[in-house]
Amino acid sequence: MTYNLEMLPREKVFRDPIHNYIHVQHRVILDLINTKEFQRLRRVKQLGTASFTFQGAEHSRFTHCMGVYEITRQICDNFQRNYPTKTPGDGLWDDNERIVALCAALLHDVGHGPYSHTFEHIFNTDHEAWTREIITSPETEINQVLRKVSADFPEKVAGVIAHTYENPQVVQMISSQIDADRMDYLLRDAYFTGTKYGMFDLTRILRVMRPYKDGIAFDNDGMHAVEDYVLSRFQMYQQVYFHPVSRGMEVVLTKLLQRAKDLYEHNHMNDFEMPSLLIPFFENHVSINDYLLLDDGVLNTYFTLWQDYPDEILKDLAHRFLNRKPFKSAEYNQVTEKMLPELADIVESAGFDKKYYTAINTSYDLPYDTYSPNSNKSRTQIEIMNDDGSLIELSTISNLVNALTGKISGDERFYFPKSMLIEHPSDIFSDAYVEFQSHIHNDSII
Amino acid sequence: MTYNLEMLPREKVFRDPIHNYIHVQHRVILDLINTKEFQRLRRVKQLGTASFTFQGAEHSRFTHCMGVYEITRQICDNFQRNYPTKTPGDGLWDDNERIVALCAALLHDVGHGPYSHTFEHIFNTDHEAWTREIITSPETEINQVLRKVSADFPEKVAGVIAHTYENPQVVQMISSQIDADRMDYLLRDAYFTGTKYGMFDLTRILRVMRPYKDGIAFDNDGMHAVEDYVLSRFQMYQQVYFHPVSRGMEVVLTKLLQRAKDLYEHNHMNDFEMPSLLIPFFENHVSINDYLLLDDGVLNTYFTLWQDYPDEILKDLAHRFLNRKPFKSAEYNQVTEKMLPELADIVESAGFDKKYYTAINTSYDLPYDTYSPNSNKSRTQIEIMNDDGSLIELSTISNLVNALTGKISGDERFYFPKSMLIEHPSDIFSDAYVEFQSHIHNDSII
Amino acid sequence: MTYNLEMLPREKVFRDPIHNYIHVQHRVILDLINTKEFQRLRRVKQLGTASFTFQGAEHSRFTHCMGVYEITRQICDNFQRNYPTKTPGDGLWDDNERIVALCAALLHDVGHGPYSHTFEHIFNTDHEAWTREIITSPETEINQVLRKVSADFPEKVAGVIAHTYENPQVVQMISSQIDADRMDYLLRDAYFTGTKYGMFDLTRILRVMRPYKDGIAFDNDGMHAVEDYVLSRFQMYQQVYFHPVSRGMEVVLTKLLQRAKDLYEHNHMNDFEMPSLLIPFFENHVSINDYLLLDDGVLNTYFTLWQDYPDEILKDLAHRFLNRKPFKSAEYNQVTEKMLPELADIVESAGFDKKYYTAINTSYDLPYDTYSPNSNKSRTQIEIMNDDGSLIELSTISNLVNALTGKISGDERFYFPKSMLIEHPSDIFSDAYVEFQSHIHNDSII
Amino acid sequence: MTYNLEMLPREKVFRDPIHNYIHVQHRVILDLINTKEFQRLRRVKQLGTASFTFQGAEHSRFTHCMGVYEITRQICDNFQRNYPTKTPGDGLWDDNERIVALCAALLHDVGHGPYSHTFEHIFNTDHEAWTREIITSPETEINQVLRKVSADFPEKVAGVIAHTYENPQVVQMISSQIDADRMDYLLRDAYFTGTKYGMFDLTRILRVMRPYKDGIAFDNDGMHAVEDYVLSRFQMYQQVYFHPVSRGMEVVLTKLLQRAKDLYEHNHMNDFEMPSLLIPFFENHVSINDYLLLDDGVLNTYFTLWQDYPDEILKDLAHRFLNRKPFKSAEYNQVTEKMLPELADIVESAGFDKKYYTAINTSYDLPYDTYSPNSNKSRTQIEIMNDDGSLIELSTISNLVNALTGKISGDERFYFPKSMLIEHPSDIFSDAYVEFQSHIHNDSII
Repeated sequence: MTYNLEMLPREKVFRDPIHNYIHVQHRVILDLINTKEFQRLRRVKQLGTASFTFQGAEHSRFTHCMGVYEITRQICDNFQRNYPTKTPGDGLWDDNERIVALCAALLHDVGHGPYSHTFEHIFNTDHEAWTREIITSPETEINQVLRKVSADFPEKVAGVIAHTYENPQVVQMISSQIDADRMDYLLRDAYFTGTKYGMFDLTRILRVMRPYKDGIAFDNDGMHAVEDYVLSRFQMYQQVYFHPVSRGMEVVLTKLLQRAKDLYEHNHMNDFEMPSLLIPFFENHVSINDYLLLDDGVLNTYFTLWQDYPDEILKDLAHRFLNRKPFKSAEYNQVTEKMLPELADIVESAGFDKKYYTAINTSYDLPYDTYSPNSNKSRTQIEIMNDDGSLIELSTISNLVNALTGKISGDERFYFPKSMLIEHPSDIFSDAYVEFQSHIHNDSII
Repeated sequence: MTYNLEMLPREKVFRDPIHNYIHVQHRVILDLINTKEFQRLRRVKQLGTASFTFQGAEHSRFTHCMGVYEITRQICDNFQRNYPTKTPGDGLWDDNERIVALCAALLHDVGHGPYSHTFEHIFNTDHEAWTREIITSPETEINQVLRKVSADFPEKVAGVIAHTYENPQVVQMISSQIDADRMDYLLRDAYFTGTKYGMFDLTRILRVMRPYKDGIAFDNDGMHAVEDYVLSRFQMYQQVYFHPVSRGMEVVLTKLLQRAKDLYEHNHMNDFEMPSLLIPFFENHVSINDYLLLDDGVLNTYFTLWQDYPDEILKDLAHRFLNRKPFKSAEYNQVTEKMLPELADIVESAGFDKKYYTAINTSYDLPYDTYSPNSNKSRTQIEIMNDDGSLIELSTISNLVNALTGKISGDERFYFPKSMLIEHPSDIFSDAYVEFQSHIHNDSII
Repeated sequence: MTYNLEMLPREKVFRDPIHNYIHVQHRVILDLINTKEFQRLRRVKQLGTASFTFQGAEHSRFTHCMGVYEITRQICDNFQRNYPTKTPGDGLWDDNERIVALCAALLHDVGHGPYSHTFEHIFNTDHEAWTREIITSPETEINQVLRKVSADFPEKVAGVIAHTYENPQVVQMISSQIDADRMDYLLRDAYFTGTKYGMFDLTRILRVMRPYKDGIAFDNDGMHAVEDYVLSRFQMYQQVYFHPVSRGMEVVLTKLLQRAKDLYEHNHMNDFEMPSLLIPFFENHVSINDYLLLDDGVLNTYFTLWQDYPDEILKDLAHRFLNRKPFKSAEYNQVTEKMLPELADIVESAGFDKKYYTAINTSYDLPYDTYSPNSNKSRTQIEIMNDDGSLIELSTISNLVNALTGKISGDERFYFPKSMLIEHPSDIFSDAYVEFQSHIHNDSII
Repeated sequence: MTYNLEMLPREKVFRDPIHNYIHVQHRVILDLINTKEFQRLRRVKQLGTASFTFQGAEHSRFTHCMGVYEITRQICDNFQRNYPTKTPGDGLWDDNERIVALCAALLHDVGHGPYSHTFEHIFNTDHEAWTREIITSPETEINQVLRKVSADFPEKVAGVIAHTYENPQVVQMISSQIDADRMDYLLRDAYFTGTKYGMFDLTRILRVMRPYKDGIAFDNDGMHAVEDYVLSRFQMYQQVYFHPVSRGMEVVLTKLLQRAKDLYEHNHMNDFEMPSLLIPFFENHVSINDYLLLDDGVLNTYFTLWQDYPDEILKDLAHRFLNRKPFKSAEYNQVTEKMLPELADIVESAGFDKKYYTAINTSYDLPYDTYSPNSNKSRTQIEIMNDDGSLIELSTISNLVNALTGKISGDERFYFPKSMLIEHPSDIFSDAYVEFQSHIHNDSII
């Protein structure tokens, strides 16, 4: 039997709080799970700084990837049972695509590093590029497993993740408005944060998904379940992913990494402080092995060490991050935006270097999108299939989704040290505090 | 107002998946949560190696401590509402004890280090002693907060944890057969592992708890809820805490730390491998600050570095731990115990140093106990209160608990590298493999 | 001690799947629960014909009323703990209002009869009027219990339900956009139908409710929980309460009762068919005792008997109702509305009396409303309280609620016998079937 | 295509709170659901008088039967996927048995009448006999549907229910220690009562079930899930099914029906009171049609009417039943059993006819059994399959089940009117009350 079709003698199950059990049936999937690159994901939190706000959200990218695999497996099972292809090009499901779909699902996030979005911002890395690299580079265990399927198999799997794979059904399973990735993370993040907002009816959605020639559509009698999913997603973004306090910790982290990088670049980092595993990143010369050595614990270990090091700013920011001292924030808008330089100057006048102690952070540039069928990215359409097989875009038949479409904004916030809000300051900076506070009312800049 | 009675202007809530919200009302509690020693608990997993078996179990000791606090708070509320003391010595609840109870609940695990039980075993530390030290030593932030209540307050809190505090109700809230600690971890571990076994009716149990002069008893109409709790606990131990695969990872970790210590002691650890934060432990000369710098990520960072270091055993064991390659095991009993030396020799003959590649592990010596009312530790009784106020020990009226009492055993396992079970070995050690396998049948030594 | 303040020697709890336990502490509440008028609610289903669509929805009005009581009790507890009045007129909570609130909560639906909305439509009764009558009429056990509090207490309780009671906080607890009634039925109906849509965060909402002089407002940090509640409500209406199949059973029931009434009025009901307990309703001369003898089982018993009776239409409709043969439906709109008479004629030409076998049913006239802050009913505002105590209407700060406001429509449907849709009719009416079907496409009239 | 293999053009789903969706794929199953005999089950509560204790437990036998069908369908799917027969007699699953299994699962309770166990006791009927009769009698719609499969198909289905069917796998699916029937009712009753005790891991158990030549066994790695099921079952019996208050209502119902029967037999029932639908039962001459006309609502309707009728005992007992006035009880044992006649006499001396106002009720004779592998009913074994295919009885490897085995008892209770416990009786019977109370202590007879 060829490797890609080799089944385990007995299905292996992994207990999971979201899907109850994750079922692994193919040798190749089990071998991928057991690679060191995949196991590394156990040491990278899924939600980064969100666990500082939602204490239960300590789950790793490992469990998420397993979940995406499981949902994809269930989609394949449904498609194979109900919509198996009969003749090539009939728009139905070709189960020969199963393995590439499962591998892409499992591996779609394997390039994530610690605190991905923040880290990438400072060090100019790109987790999607790393994902492809890990899959296609011959030096990884993952690549070695995939090549056992066939020489071009790693490229195929990478192609699914890059949306260039030829079969749109496979691509949309992993990446579209309603894909296995989003469905898993909404349910999983809702469960671990303990919010209810991310809950939707996965079973129902899986039942009404169906392949067609350009991808995946949804039976019209499942419209309400799809609507509910869109809503859940909206609420999770507003209430969890965009939470101002998590962003306040993200800002601290950004500034901390920036400070370390600046010290290194200006040769102000002494030997003692030198974080060996970060040097390739400071020098912008990162091998795949360098990249794979990082995880949350490695960064935190350097922060732990920096807490006792000479540079006052590095030390202070490390302390703030490890011991959960988020920057505070106030909302601004197009009118009050012009106040920001003045506010930054006041912060500076209170003794804080404004480069490291003020920031703007908008929820727009967070790496999440919301449902917008009219955008020019073709993947953003959710298609509902009528009884007669014709398709109709969701927002044209759902009052609720239509109401949401294009209305969503997010917020823009100015971040600063909490002490700027001390009520009765008695120190030498008290004038600065009082002036600063006169510009903030009801959590907004005025 | 004195500090210990100072209420926050507005109750602060922490979202939690187990208790929905954790309610903080006192200034002193919020200040304790914000100390660096308490925040460190975010970086120490509650269940150590169990997340290698139950992938969702990645929750930290931080969330557990918050949960124990919350349950204790609810017990105090119930006691104050329903059983407030009227005259000293009437055996009812004196709400002046609330703050000491809440602080002890919050801090009861603050001395836990990374992978506590394994680490303690190798380095001869004791998390309970460290907990007391962190509470009573003037150099910690926790101690500084507690001393604001009163000079002797840290000792009181430590006394509750040490069971020496004078009020038995307070002691039993935190530590007894049915205490806030166990109730939280059973529910929490059940939730995060995704097993159902640990679920019981917390609301009901809280309702039927009542103070009496020697501690805490349970109304007889809550007997079934208490019974169900005992059962849940039994099942969690059997099915989660004693899981053979988690123990297989624990064995790997034990051997890895042992190897590092041995290398250091024999001066075989080269400079490159030197783990600065562990040296105090190797040298058995650990300050409170040394202790508090450790967390899961720090250990894992050293393991990550060791994966590329010269010593083959250190390297191999680090790889096994980080990449989840648990030792396999077989059960043995009093009869087959005598086979163990021979089996260890076979493992050695297959090329493994038996000191680092074989182990015995029994679930008896895991740091969990089960309900045994006849043991000589007085705290193990669960007392049910009759309508007329008389008390009766649970197992005398519950068939189910009586059936369980004293029957529990656990298992004894011999651990070894998985490769000893290769089915058709073709290498130079194949004879050893074949012989080894002839001694194992159905997961047991024969 | 006066009766209204008399506490039970020991709190009595009722196990409930929604609230876990319902806590009864006052003698008067327990006495009300034990009246025969309140126990009758066990024999009246909460959702009428919805259990024909959502099979689990077999719960009674009894459990709902208990739930409304429990939520009200929790609101009172919160108000009393956090916002107790200090001086009259300060807009805070006066706990002397607790008993009237609890009684009104418990009794608010006591006048509901079997299949209320349908039954009322045919027999011109009004469950709200009956509720007031049952509370204020000296012949009921409920009135006798209430009068033990004081002579004018029944009128006070009835006044709360009629929105005429002087204290707006008490009125809004029981009846407003977010009241104990709606909160219980959304959660309860979601649980028993097995849909997830009705779930929202009750604990959170209870925490952010607060009294003010004109009623009840919500702290601004609970805005998202309130938003989620509005959304849940919208979804439950669209997906459960307005379900076309339940309405198809409702139509059958309407026609069945109509036929019985018509037969009686035209003296065509023979002695054998005579339903003694319904005669007062046929004759439009109903005493309170007559009213209280009815329940779901009584109606169903008559339907059971009618299944074997001579009148063909009565017999057929009784069969359709008992054995779940809902009328089918098609949507129509302002354009296609003009087709309805023609369609009814076709149904008649297929051998069905159009008076009893066709109907229009719109979800507008179902007895549920949705959130519309601009309507002229003043109670429809949800007020959010800013940090400085000022109020702001929800839709002005919630994009989501604003998007929903005023957009909701419902649907209008034409109902007819399922056989009109037979695909290959072979009987004498086949022409009628074919013609009828030519007017229906994709579940809509064309 | 033959009728038994006819699939619906599109799978039909029924929303269910326990199984989320119930999937109907075969025409014959949908036709059976739509028969009037099956729809009648909507009007018969699953748990009889238990809803007087657990208010949420108002669910019908209809939903339970649907659930048993669904579990059976899932078992068949698993068996067909993983253990399809290859050669006759190989002990694997023959999917030709699917339809008979599904029909038997759906119909296994179709002969249940209102308040089955009580009703049967008084009127000497047997719901199992009626189930077979409804399936095999040519006058039912169910029989007509089944005969479309084949002439002998009704007998086959009845045979499964009677345990005489030749294929032991099919029989054990429906009726054994772990069958679809019990698994559904434990989960369902737990859900609707709101207790947690009945919850177990259905998914896991379904995964480890496997056919073998003598029936159904369980993979050894599912042992803990099976153990947990046994425990859940034990707890549900102790805490829900044997609840003393539900039994107190059952006693009232028994006495009420007994009184009606006695009045009829002695010609003391006047015309007005005559319950036409019950007469066949009074006269012990019941046709299948007579039987099928009964449901909970019909009985309650007669009770409603009897509340206003002349016979004082009938009237009083009808009032007690409808308005939830359970008899109270006290436990007795072998020693105190001898007191019962004296206690009954005291009750009589207080003005109650002891025939109708006292009763003994033991939980032994309730129609539930518990796990007892050594009983002589061969079906009571739960077999665990070792890796090598050998079988071992559960209690020999589970400490927990072994501890339970044979230990279970239940209780024996004496029932009497609540007023016998009035604390300070002031009426003419006060001596009787005082004497009676002197024999009861702590809920037991002394």
